[in-house]
Amino acid sequence: MKNQTQKAEEFRELHRRKKLLILPNAWDVPSARIFEEEGFPAVATSSAGIMVSLGYPDGEVIDRKSFVAATQRIASALSVPLSADIVSGFGATPRDVMTTVKSVLKAGAVGINIEDFDHASGKLVPLKRQVEKLRALGALRDSQRVPFVINARTDALRHAKGSERARLEEAIRRGIVYRDTQADCIYPMGLTDAASIETFVHALHCPVNVMVRPGLPSVSELERLGVKRLSLGPSASYAALGLLRRASRELLERGTYATLLDGAINFDELNRLAVPKR
Amino acid sequence: MKNQTQKAEEFRELHRRKKLLILPNAWDVPSARIFEEEGFPAVATSSAGIMVSLGYPDGEVIDRKSFVAATQRIASALSVPLSADIVSGFGATPRDVMTTVKSVLKAGAVGINIEDFDHASGKLVPLKRQVEKLRALGALRDSQRVPFVINARTDALRHAKGSERARLEEAIRRGIVYRDTQADCIYPMGLTDAASIETFVHALHCPVNVMVRPGLPSVSELERLGVKRLSLGPSASYAALGLLRRASRELLERGTYATLLDGAINFDELNRLAVPKR
Repeated sequence: MKNQTQKAEEFRELHRRKKLLILPNAWDVPSARIFEEEGFPAVATSSAGIMVSLGYPDGEVIDRKSFVAATQRIASALSVPLSADIVSGFGATPRDVMTTVKSVLKAGAVGINIEDFDHASGKLVPLKRQVEKLRALGALRDSQRVPFVINARTDALRHAKGSERARLEEAIRRGIVYRDTQADCIYPMGLTDAASIETFVHALHCPVNVMVRPGLPSVSELERLGVKRLSLGPSASYAALGLLRRASRELLERGTYATLLDGAINFDELNRLAVPKR
Repeated sequence: MKNQTQKAEEFRELHRRKKLLILPNAWDVPSARIFEEEGFPAVATSSAGIMVSLGYPDGEVIDRKSFVAATQRIASALSVPLSADIVSGFGATPRDVMTTVKSVLKAGAVGINIEDFDHASGKLVPLKRQVEKLRALGALRDSQRVPFVINARTDALRHAKGSERARLEEAIRRGIVYRDTQADCIYPMGLTDAASIETFVHALHCPVNVMVRPGLPSVSELERLGVKRLSLGPSASYAALGLLRRASRELLERGTYATLLDGAINFDELNRLAVPKR
């Protein structure tokens, strides 16, 4: 069993390979464990997935303690590295964000995602304030024994002002500032089409993270475009709940069980997902 | 919004209709809420689903408090009645079981499942002891304002001694005793084939619960056989995790996203599942 420092180094190294790092986002223990069983070299959390599973809407409505406890349950069950999505960091100040990051590191995470969208105001966090947070995180990363990976997400493509072109330029501008302020990887939320991905990767010249969405190029095409990390985001939650919807409709409309039974795992497999891999 | 007494009466009444009650078993807030959205008139919890989602194997390894808290999160998010699976009741004595049932009632449940299998010893609970538990539960049900439904599960088909025929006879014997000791519905775990279901229902002559498994007759056939309640058990968990496995394989082997994206719900739909239906 690797210690947390080794896991952080391993996770960091996964961003430097020629091969794209595919990072599946889990929301509870079995979703995380099945990704590990299937061979992903690392797992991330989906903040929306965790929050909704516990009965909270996306954002930072959930209390930090419950959120971190869920991250800890997942980290404790995994042998591979875990990256924790911390939304905007649970607080406006660098001090708040540090408290959150220290708690997810204590929970076992070896990477974090931090976004520049303020859920309370519905606006982008001012660049200066986001830089202060990232500077504090970089200092923390370099001052203790777990060199966690900082994935800086920008929501400029969705929430900046102006045309699509202007928003892409703002995302690039923010991405460059974040890269130059301690971020290890840049995550432009909503970047989907090949041309924009190419522009972004070329401008950033550092590890870039994209998310699975309808229209995203395939993994081999993303590798050709120079993308280093692919997240599922909440898409695995969407898919699992879509399946429950189809199974419900079949059951209520036709009274049969094919969607429930075909391709399902069994009791022993479920039970094995509760405990760490041996 | 109905109060808990009304929900209990409504749930009770759902066992007396000509139409079979299909009861989907959830393990977290969104799985419960999507079943409600799709039109099931009530929802149940899957104890295995809840436990594994929180990183505990099936049985009673999880502490009662964490287990009840998960039940409460689900109950709080639903408008329809919720039945809580309490495994064997979290304790050997009627007093232990009463503590558990009182806590799930307080959490908002209006029905409970209690099984006669002792996870610690791997054996059936002696009939006399199970009867003491059911007697206490019946007294509780009749002494307070929430007339919760008692679904008594027997594991005799799997864990009694002797031939298949002998085990079915023991399940019937136990079922009759449970029915005559306050149980509202009898749940013979593992009853799957039409002939055995017919024999069981005919012998019991009270509401009988079966569970979705490969080989189970369709809903219309179950209605013809006189079954009053159909549970999904952990099968929805199995199905959702099977989907994650298929999506993982597609992603790792082919680098594409069809299993993740086809038939998935979207962000607004996910977020809506976090909060009670309006």
